[in-house]
Amino acid sequence: MNADPERDIPDIEDIHLAHARIRGQVRRTPVINDPGLDEVLGCRLYCKLENLQHAGAFKFRGASNAVLVLEEAGEPGDVATHSSGNHGAALALAAHMAGRTAHVVMPDNSSPLKIDAVRGYGGTVHLCAPTHEGRHAGLQRLVADGLRAIHPYDDRNIIAGQGTAALELEQDVPSLEQIITPLGGGGLVSGTAIATRAWGVDVFAVEPEGAADTVASLERGRIVDSWQPDTIADGLRAIVGVRNFAVIRDHVRQVFTVSDDDIRRAMVLFWRHLKMLIEPSSATVIAAVRNHPETFAGRKVGAIITGGNIHPADWLQLTAEH
Amino acid sequence: MNADPERDIPDIEDIHLAHARIRGQVRRTPVINDPGLDEVLGCRLYCKLENLQHAGAFKFRGASNAVLVLEEAGEPGDVATHSSGNHGAALALAAHMAGRTAHVVMPDNSSPLKIDAVRGYGGTVHLCAPTHEGRHAGLQRLVADGLRAIHPYDDRNIIAGQGTAALELEQDVPSLEQIITPLGGGGLVSGTAIATRAWGVDVFAVEPEGAADTVASLERGRIVDSWQPDTIADGLRAIVGVRNFAVIRDHVRQVFTVSDDDIRRAMVLFWRHLKMLIEPSSATVIAAVRNHPETFAGRKVGAIITGGNIHPADWLQLTAEH
Repeated sequence: MNADPERDIPDIEDIHLAHARIRGQVRRTPVINDPGLDEVLGCRLYCKLENLQHAGAFKFRGASNAVLVLEEAGEPGDVATHSSGNHGAALALAAHMAGRTAHVVMPDNSSPLKIDAVRGYGGTVHLCAPTHEGRHAGLQRLVADGLRAIHPYDDRNIIAGQGTAALELEQDVPSLEQIITPLGGGGLVSGTAIATRAWGVDVFAVEPEGAADTVASLERGRIVDSWQPDTIADGLRAIVGVRNFAVIRDHVRQVFTVSDDDIRRAMVLFWRHLKMLIEPSSATVIAAVRNHPETFAGRKVGAIITGGNIHPADWLQLTAEH
Repeated sequence: MNADPERDIPDIEDIHLAHARIRGQVRRTPVINDPGLDEVLGCRLYCKLENLQHAGAFKFRGASNAVLVLEEAGEPGDVATHSSGNHGAALALAAHMAGRTAHVVMPDNSSPLKIDAVRGYGGTVHLCAPTHEGRHAGLQRLVADGLRAIHPYDDRNIIAGQGTAALELEQDVPSLEQIITPLGGGGLVSGTAIATRAWGVDVFAVEPEGAADTVASLERGRIVDSWQPDTIADGLRAIVGVRNFAVIRDHVRQVFTVSDDDIRRAMVLFWRHLKMLIEPSSATVIAAVRNHPETFAGRKVGAIITGGNIHPADWLQLTAEH
């Protein structure tokens, strides 16, 4: 790792290299526009369906890139991470495809669906106490055993991999004026901002109100020390990373916040028009576009729909009465 | 209408013309292959995702073609049909896009979701008694009022429109050996068989055991007079049409049947690997491929996933314990 993380950030060439590296195993997900949804939102929205990505989320892009960089460097061995969600499953699958095993430290209150996903893709699950300390200690033990840790977002290769989604979106819809992505740790939006800088596209991000640590960090000029997340968007509870924050601060036009109720309504809206169940995290972008006509009305907007790993029963429960 | 329906069947050129006519308003749906699903099925399956089509089903292709043929012919006026399902919503949308109104006769026990869909796309709903006679009488009244009836499947333009899905599938995956579609009234499979004849692709169809009127009709050499359908695949309860039967008899390699339990399992399998909820009707193709390795193992197979118009609560109820 570079001594100064803020100088260890990929550039556009790294994202193109990542794309060349991963495109043989990553699904080129479709981009979809829906006139009915556009009518509700008041803009032309082009949704990049990463919910249809392998392992059900864009996370497979970054994980594939991180593992394939190890392959190229001739560095053998298993990999490790901590994750209660999509990064763990994505890393399990990417490692499996390279003949390696991913060891994933997961809180012992993780959903059975997520635990099964990691195992189903060939990963080994290490349950830990559901605390920051528990996860950290679990990962440290694996690293002490010689495994290579792959951070879910504050990592040069992960950021470059996540940026490939915007690259494809721009190739498929060349005249986009704006792109919006969800923001948790910041891997996706930082990759997106780097990937699209040359095109002059305005990049926006969205945090749930209950996990608006990046907005707070931007206000005080440095990353908040801690944050107690409280949101249904389980994929966005992380605190923004150092590399990610630097890119967001310098290159993201604005970070919006949306309420959990906005998210629930957006999940239903997306289902009604596109017949797909998306995670609360993914629905944040729909909610933000809906809430901010002053920014998006009449524009040609790209949105990255980040993941579809939600059980229909959970979707129903979250959207009841919306 | 031609006096002899069996001579009123579109040819490949009609399907190409239909494609040119409708492609400006029909979504070019993505084709997706999933290695995990392939492992379970033992073949390479390329799914044409018509569940992501406008109005949530392939039916929009035929409906668009039928309405645009009227436009080209300079025939004004509203259109009518009877439908408890996707054809009604598709025709409502296609008519709306041409500045017309579709009048849809629907059984008064139709699901509120389906009724709302027709209305949401600008159609007018005429509720009737939930019987064959009720639907027929309702439609006859509309025709007597001067509306043009558009049959859901036993119609030259509908068949040509449905055939465009296979045309696109073949363009996207040129080396397919086989294509399989669900079979209700036969609009889709007859269009598919006509569209792909030049390529030497083997075309297969699937009926639910409880709506296997086509298999029975093939056995006795003519269409059965009546059939009391009993299946969860609500989109496949119709009796095969005259034009459709003629094409199936002459050009479809085999019609499989699957049980409702096969269908339930296939819905769960599809969701587990591709994170999409599909209608029971759509899942029949997955079930048939899974049940018939003697036909599909090791082959490169195209499957048309016909529709995604199912409420998550209904999906959960149908798949409980599977």
